[in-house]
Amino acid sequence: MDGKGLADEMQIDMQEMVAELKNKGITPGLVVLLVGENPASQTYVKNKEKRAIALGFHSVVERYPATISEAELLEEIEKFNQDDDFHGILVQLPLPEHIDADKVLNAIDSTKDVDGFHPINMGKLLIGKPDMIPCTPYGIMKLLARYNIDISGKNAVIIGRSNIVGKPMAQLLLMEDATVTIAHSKTKNLVEVAKQADILVVAIGRGHFVTKEFIKPGAVVIDVGMNRDENGKLIGDVATSEVSEVAGFLTPVPKGVGPMTITMLLYQTIKNARKKGNQ
Amino acid sequence: MDGKGLADEMQIDMQEMVAELKNKGITPGLVVLLVGENPASQTYVKNKEKRAIALGFHSVVERYPATISEAELLEEIEKFNQDDDFHGILVQLPLPEHIDADKVLNAIDSTKDVDGFHPINMGKLLIGKPDMIPCTPYGIMKLLARYNIDISGKNAVIIGRSNIVGKPMAQLLLMEDATVTIAHSKTKNLVEVAKQADILVVAIGRGHFVTKEFIKPGAVVIDVGMNRDENGKLIGDVATSEVSEVAGFLTPVPKGVGPMTITMLLYQTIKNARKKGNQ
Repeated sequence: MDGKGLADEMQIDMQEMVAELKNKGITPGLVVLLVGENPASQTYVKNKEKRAIALGFHSVVERYPATISEAELLEEIEKFNQDDDFHGILVQLPLPEHIDADKVLNAIDSTKDVDGFHPINMGKLLIGKPDMIPCTPYGIMKLLARYNIDISGKNAVIIGRSNIVGKPMAQLLLMEDATVTIAHSKTKNLVEVAKQADILVVAIGRGHFVTKEFIKPGAVVIDVGMNRDENGKLIGDVATSEVSEVAGFLTPVPKGVGPMTITMLLYQTIKNARKKGNQ
Repeated sequence: MDGKGLADEMQIDMQEMVAELKNKGITPGLVVLLVGENPASQTYVKNKEKRAIALGFHSVVERYPATISEAELLEEIEKFNQDDDFHGILVQLPLPEHIDADKVLNAIDSTKDVDGFHPINMGKLLIGKPDMIPCTPYGIMKLLARYNIDISGKNAVIIGRSNIVGKPMAQLLLMEDATVTIAHSKTKNLVEVAKQADILVVAIGRGHFVTKEFIKPGAVVIDVGMNRDENGKLIGDVATSEVSEVAGFLTPVPKGVGPMTITMLLYQTIKNARKKGNQ
């Protein structure tokens, strides 16, 4: 399953959406708050910025020293909450240890929370009326739709229960009428559980952990992993070459789920700007 | 599993908690807003009131005609949001059709939402940091704890995906490290799925639907159903007499989950009053 390809397709649609908005005098605005010098964060933020600018966004990256106080960061967020030029606010994680990440995420205006991590957005998702949706699982749903994967009544198994992937993924698949199982590090007989999956989503952060024994023949396998092997090469949680012999569909790493995550972030920012246009 | 017995035990503990609060000059206050004349609602509200008064609560039931407008009801809620005498606000469902129940539930101050249905409380639950918890699944967790049921690493299957039982139940069991499956009306091979459960929670609203074929020998079976049979007798979703031959533990109907739901509602109101005492 070609995540890069779908992201490119959507980029074209989104260019049109941005052009329409600009005709109405609205430029989608996204601000990314980056604290400290984490090299991985620098790379992520650079990619987001590049894609946002390519779409014609008003894209701002605010950089703060790792020594910024929590109170100062909260003040900055409040400033952007009030600023109508920005339809999306994103705080790049991780934050330095002296800052309470929950407190910071909760301070973002939930209607500008394009990452979908605010408790009120998580709550809307849990009650089946989602507004802002965490971008990785949202991107996976778009991929499944693009490949006409039938979800209703299927067994979906998610390995990993993080707040940013596993748990929201479960809710989205449940909304599409899958029978959903959430498995994790404490699960016994993980191979047996995984093997019942018609749709298997793997998000555990262990390189090539899922081998072909885990896979029901013909299953759809979504690999959310982003790990480095001993040579520094980017690898997924799924042992791609052997699993591809058994699976019906498989997302590669890279160019699978990853490009869709940034795409959905930009997509939600555009949706927010559109809402503003309709007010 | 004796829900009535545990509710009685907790009633004694809660009496002590209320006495302590009263020594500090705080009386736990609960207001129930009841719209219209639904007979089942009248019964539920009467039970809640009786239990609250027995605990020494400041207990108020506000009754409104079925013709009350949404705006008027929202104003009433805002009045109780502002009133420090009340630590819990509960709107009895169902509401008349001309009133948007979501809008009403969202209007309750989330810190007084002792039913746990506000999106922000659902979101806190989804991210694993619960505050107010929906009372039926919360009561089930207390029952499991009281009977020393081991949850970590066990297969838990929930039949039913409502916002008030199935979905929050899944999150609570996941927090205790169960491998959790959510099944529902679209699930294929439901018998097979249920039979893998070490802990089976049934909340589908179909009298005696779950028969012994669904049950793994020795499983813990929680029956959330409240149905009337042809003679008007209260029955659960589980065919009690035959399932009790196979299950290791089983909650009866009545006197199982039901009494725990009201208990947790009162318990959360007391917890809120305590928070106020610590401020």
